[in-house]
Amino acid sequence: MTIVGVDPGYGILGYGVLEKEGNKIKYVTHGVITTKKEIEMPERLGYIYSEFVKILDEFSPDVCAMERLFFYKNAKTAIHVGEARGVILLAISQKNIPLKEFTPYQVKNNVTGYGKANKMQVQKMMKILLNLNEIPKPDDAADALAVAWCYAVEKVI
Amino acid sequence: MTIVGVDPGYGILGYGVLEKEGNKIKYVTHGVITTKKEIEMPERLGYIYSEFVKILDEFSPDVCAMERLFFYKNAKTAIHVGEARGVILLAISQKNIPLKEFTPYQVKNNVTGYGKANKMQVQKMMKILLNLNEIPKPDDAADALAVAWCYAVEKVI
Repeated sequence: MTIVGVDPGYGILGYGVLEKEGNKIKYVTHGVITTKKEIEMPERLGYIYSEFVKILDEFSPDVCAMERLFFYKNAKTAIHVGEARGVILLAISQKNIPLKEFTPYQVKNNVTGYGKANKMQVQKMMKILLNLNEIPKPDDAADALAVAWCYAVEKVI
Repeated sequence: MTIVGVDPGYGILGYGVLEKEGNKIKYVTHGVITTKKEIEMPERLGYIYSEFVKILDEFSPDVCAMERLFFYKNAKTAIHVGEARGVILLAISQKNIPLKEFTPYQVKNNVTGYGKANKMQVQKMMKILLNLNEIPKPDDAADALAVAWCYAVEKVI
């Protein structure tokens, strides 16, 4: 089973792909889709959508995992993150890929054993758990791997 | 020139189409796209997107007008409205239709002459200005017509 984790954003959107066979979880890839703030929002969303569709086409994930966030600095940020989420959800809906959402607490708990762990702890654990040579960068991609991991182990437990 | 106004939402999304020739503004149509709350969000967004694409195909608008809202009851609502906005912005981006956003103050001011007018006043004015037999219903479609109107007269002024 292939899992794509997504950390949605409009300036930078992180993704991470994991493969799960039985109880083994294997790292596949991680990366980001970035857009420049000088570009109009519809065009940025068009780019995010088409790049994400390419990722779905390349890795054919069975499920998409995402963090469920309900707190934002302000409504403007929430609206724009929502817009990025919208095109991601549209892409997975068009390919009949189910979505599973997790709270930040669930992600941290499944990655570090502590639901209130800090960001660095989560990133360090991603390196260890996925047997990587270094901490996955940037943060957004590490977070995307973490939520994919959360899905993978939620099903094991 | 054909203008489509959109009042974005996920449970109910209003749209209104106006035609502008010279200084004349003509009513074309209005309506809503609705989705049920029992349905998963990706599927709801998929439906909103495909229905909105049908509207764009039918009326071939030259521009899309939308209200810019930065205040929401809570971040959860803002995120979901953002998701609906995201698929609308994607659809217009894919068809190279430019987006023009207006504040609620601008819309009210251009429709009623008073930037702090109430909802009912805006709706009554839509009936009068567009020479309709009754107030356009539901509210979401009336609001969509109002923002389309705002675009139309902004260019006249």
